[in-house]
Amino acid sequence: MDLPHPSRDRTNTQVLLASRPEGEPTTSNFQVVQNAIPAPGHDEVLLRNVFLSLDPYMRGRMNAAGSYAAPVQVGEVMVGGTVSEVVNGNGSEFLPGDIVLSYTGWQTYAVAAVGDLRRLDPTIAPVSTALGVLGMPGFTAYAGLSEIGRPARGETVVVAAASGPVGSVVGQLAHLAGARAVGIVGGPEKVRFIEGLGFDTALDHRSASFSEDLKAAVPEGIDVYFENVGGKIWDAVLPLLNEYARVPVCGLVATYNNTAPPAGPDRTGLMMTSILRKSLTVRGFLQSEFVPTHTERFFAEMMPLVRSGALRYREDIVEGLENAPAAFIGMLRGENFGKLLVKLT
Amino acid sequence: MDLPHPSRDRTNTQVLLASRPEGEPTTSNFQVVQNAIPAPGHDEVLLRNVFLSLDPYMRGRMNAAGSYAAPVQVGEVMVGGTVSEVVNGNGSEFLPGDIVLSYTGWQTYAVAAVGDLRRLDPTIAPVSTALGVLGMPGFTAYAGLSEIGRPARGETVVVAAASGPVGSVVGQLAHLAGARAVGIVGGPEKVRFIEGLGFDTALDHRSASFSEDLKAAVPEGIDVYFENVGGKIWDAVLPLLNEYARVPVCGLVATYNNTAPPAGPDRTGLMMTSILRKSLTVRGFLQSEFVPTHTERFFAEMMPLVRSGALRYREDIVEGLENAPAAFIGMLRGENFGKLLVKLT
Repeated sequence: MDLPHPSRDRTNTQVLLASRPEGEPTTSNFQVVQNAIPAPGHDEVLLRNVFLSLDPYMRGRMNAAGSYAAPVQVGEVMVGGTVSEVVNGNGSEFLPGDIVLSYTGWQTYAVAAVGDLRRLDPTIAPVSTALGVLGMPGFTAYAGLSEIGRPARGETVVVAAASGPVGSVVGQLAHLAGARAVGIVGGPEKVRFIEGLGFDTALDHRSASFSEDLKAAVPEGIDVYFENVGGKIWDAVLPLLNEYARVPVCGLVATYNNTAPPAGPDRTGLMMTSILRKSLTVRGFLQSEFVPTHTERFFAEMMPLVRSGALRYREDIVEGLENAPAAFIGMLRGENFGKLLVKLT
Repeated sequence: MDLPHPSRDRTNTQVLLASRPEGEPTTSNFQVVQNAIPAPGHDEVLLRNVFLSLDPYMRGRMNAAGSYAAPVQVGEVMVGGTVSEVVNGNGSEFLPGDIVLSYTGWQTYAVAAVGDLRRLDPTIAPVSTALGVLGMPGFTAYAGLSEIGRPARGETVVVAAASGPVGSVVGQLAHLAGARAVGIVGGPEKVRFIEGLGFDTALDHRSASFSEDLKAAVPEGIDVYFENVGGKIWDAVLPLLNEYARVPVCGLVATYNNTAPPAGPDRTGLMMTSILRKSLTVRGFLQSEFVPTHTERFFAEMMPLVRSGALRYREDIVEGLENAPAAFIGMLRGENFGKLLVKLT
């Protein structure tokens, strides 16, 4: 028998990209299909996926081109990070029951190359954290803040999407570094949550007085703005940036569903003028840039903080792969509350 | 007698800011007046100005606020760098006839604090170079390129206003560093000039096919864009920037006379998207930031290059302070050809 465990499944449930979205995705852009469970080849293992990570960058992959990585083709399985249980180690170093970090996408089973897996130790932290605070989002926050943001003690750090898996780590690391952490979230429940994480100030961008609230929250201006969102939040931040402020540009979730640029006037020149007059550093990055240089120190610094509870995280877990499309669409609207994961049942 | 040399002048000719310009300045924004030659106080000397530097940043000083330095007040003498002859050393280390670099503005005489002067050695290079290739513009090019642009051998560096005192140094230093230097200028005469300086490619932004010309000139994309201009040149450059490209933002002369942002759509979000997708670094700077750290190495590297002729420069010298306003207005339109200086007769 090829599949020693679990034996009850006979098919692989997959979510395919059915069509490319125009603007905001709908569930019709996805298709749930059943296919045969694949067999591992040489240097491959068979995995049963346990958690699927849903992340904003996936929206870019749904477009035909223009993102920073190859698009998902129509009819292909949607990509994504996964935590998986080894079903068939196929003679490799991995044994059935081992839990691994993988990148096998929106499906319940997958084969993966042995070299693409990292074994997870459930005694360090819940294995789901390998997709969040101790995974790509946490690493994104860590690398972008330490390499580009570089907050000094007493400086003011602002981050939006601050209850999410990147923003919540940015704010907590900034606070631990002795900076003032100002978080921007959507809704009073998220405000309370990030206040509980130790953010010095929490602001609701849905407030009618948001721009004024932000101004009042940063009496000494903004030294680091960690950009996850773009749009109206960037508009409010830009005039408050201090001389020599640093802006790690990590994501622009407010713009991912845009089909055309907003109406004018064209403020590109005004932004360049601010960059010039204030000697700003605006620096885009993908976490992958820093993997070779920062992975070791990331684990060395972050694991003790997570284990001790000094650095906290929140997960928003959706059950069942068939619910992934709706959860993903909601995430792009800010409806998730914490790191969005799909638990594959 | 207070004024041992020259004794023929009895008045100080000054150019005042008469009114703040709306958009492009006109000569009516300036007023030429005659005033008494001032007397030096304690730790001051009396100077006769020999050369006045005209630079784009002065446009910002004419506005009421919002630039990176205090505005010139209406009725005050316009600011500016000067090369001056000491008339009365007033007991200081400076003797009559000494030539110094000073910052005394648009006037024929001035008193200056002894501590604000640097003695110039005419045997190293013509003293006018202290306002150009061996002065603030040359230093701006040197610091912005070496600290922010950081071109590697074989990379492509693009600079606009490339026949000017900053751009011409950027391109030559890039070429000397083994990078491909692509210069953008206005008009065929300037094209020929920068080709003679060793730029690998020279482009005329007045050409109807400028965007296509630029694309053809950078078959491997752009790794460093040294931004002096903004506007349509930035629009043409942005799509051609490579991953990890660096953009030192040094000036935006195309926008200085703008009274309102141009018509839409608003492409701010598209620019942020490019910054994110390509991991760009866009970094504004003023040369003053690097004075404490880079002055010594600037002179050590640049003086031999200028003396040997390996690094060349061109000056555009206007005679007579009364012609400074028209020359300055023309410079903002790109009418100068080389470092614009006023020789005070």
